[in-house]
Amino acid sequence: MRRTGAEARQRILEAAMEEFTRHGADGARIDRIARNAGASKERLYAYFGDKQSLFDEVVRSAVERSSMAVDLEADDLVAYALRLARHFFRHPDDLRMLAWMRLEEQCEQVLAIDSLVSHHERKLAAVRRAQDAGTVDTVWDPAELLQVVLATATYWARASGTGGLSEERCLAVVEEAVRRLIAPR
Amino acid sequence: MRRTGAEARQRILEAAMEEFTRHGADGARIDRIARNAGASKERLYAYFGDKQSLFDEVVRSAVERSSMAVDLEADDLVAYALRLARHFFRHPDDLRMLAWMRLEEQCEQVLAIDSLVSHHERKLAAVRRAQDAGTVDTVWDPAELLQVVLATATYWARASGTGGLSEERCLAVVEEAVRRLIAPR
Repeated sequence: MRRTGAEARQRILEAAMEEFTRHGADGARIDRIARNAGASKERLYAYFGDKQSLFDEVVRSAVERSSMAVDLEADDLVAYALRLARHFFRHPDDLRMLAWMRLEEQCEQVLAIDSLVSHHERKLAAVRRAQDAGTVDTVWDPAELLQVVLATATYWARASGTGGLSEERCLAVVEEAVRRLIAPR
Repeated sequence: MRRTGAEARQRILEAAMEEFTRHGADGARIDRIARNAGASKERLYAYFGDKQSLFDEVVRSAVERSSMAVDLEADDLVAYALRLARHFFRHPDDLRMLAWMRLEEQCEQVLAIDSLVSHHERKLAAVRRAQDAGTVDTVWDPAELLQVVLATATYWARASGTGGLSEERCLAVVEEAVRRLIAPR
């Protein structure tokens, strides 16, 4: 029984991820999520409370998955940016959920999760070590630099209807840009 | 009568902008837009067709307003990036509409508008002139560089729940970043 419950929960989460990435919190429909998950609405509500709680849960898992996929341990910001770019290139739904999160103005709650805060602290420490080692210019505030690197690593996601972007080409642009951003003068 | 019609149309557009920036195309409600504009739903439909057409119209005007506000004539990418950053800092709704546009996958239609295409062509030509003049590194493809600059100029909009961002500080970061990106080696 317990196992079946965990599976149903997971199916609901996956169906919710798909629904929310397409329609956002306002546009998503609970009955469609339940139907696509093969679950009853009653069960969905029993597991997740209301639609807002379900949205929060989906955003949180997208943020956690993205953050964990791209740890910054080796003090190498170029490699980190390339991992970020590659992750989002291959998991565009994670990027879409982050965009929804911003539009729904959920950032503060989601990013206050303990695991993400300590993850962010580790990244800041890695940037400081790189600055001490002389591979990243000390002109930068580590937190601001990480934001600029994140924006740069996903620059192609803002790209307009040009279509046909190749992952290889985008990664080459990200690498060139981040090398220039960090280079000590 | 004609004047009243134009005014009513404008009021509907403004109410729609507010509704869509908050709820997106899926979540927006036509009856709320009509009520906030002091118009009947019948009139709204007569002017704009269906909800999708109204959304397209609002996105298009946000894109046009943003693009026109930040022309790149002087071949000066740093000044251009700062104008972009300042415009979006002061008009966050325009940035929200661009995010909705991407999430609704409307980029191709909207960006194919003649005025925007020729606007983009002028920007590409300005980057090429700057490369010829030696103020922008020739390593860059002009279109890709413009995308990276746009991402950088709005890096703070991805910023997480840190709150209390100052416009002055964000502009200083944008300036430093874009100088580094373009500097000829």
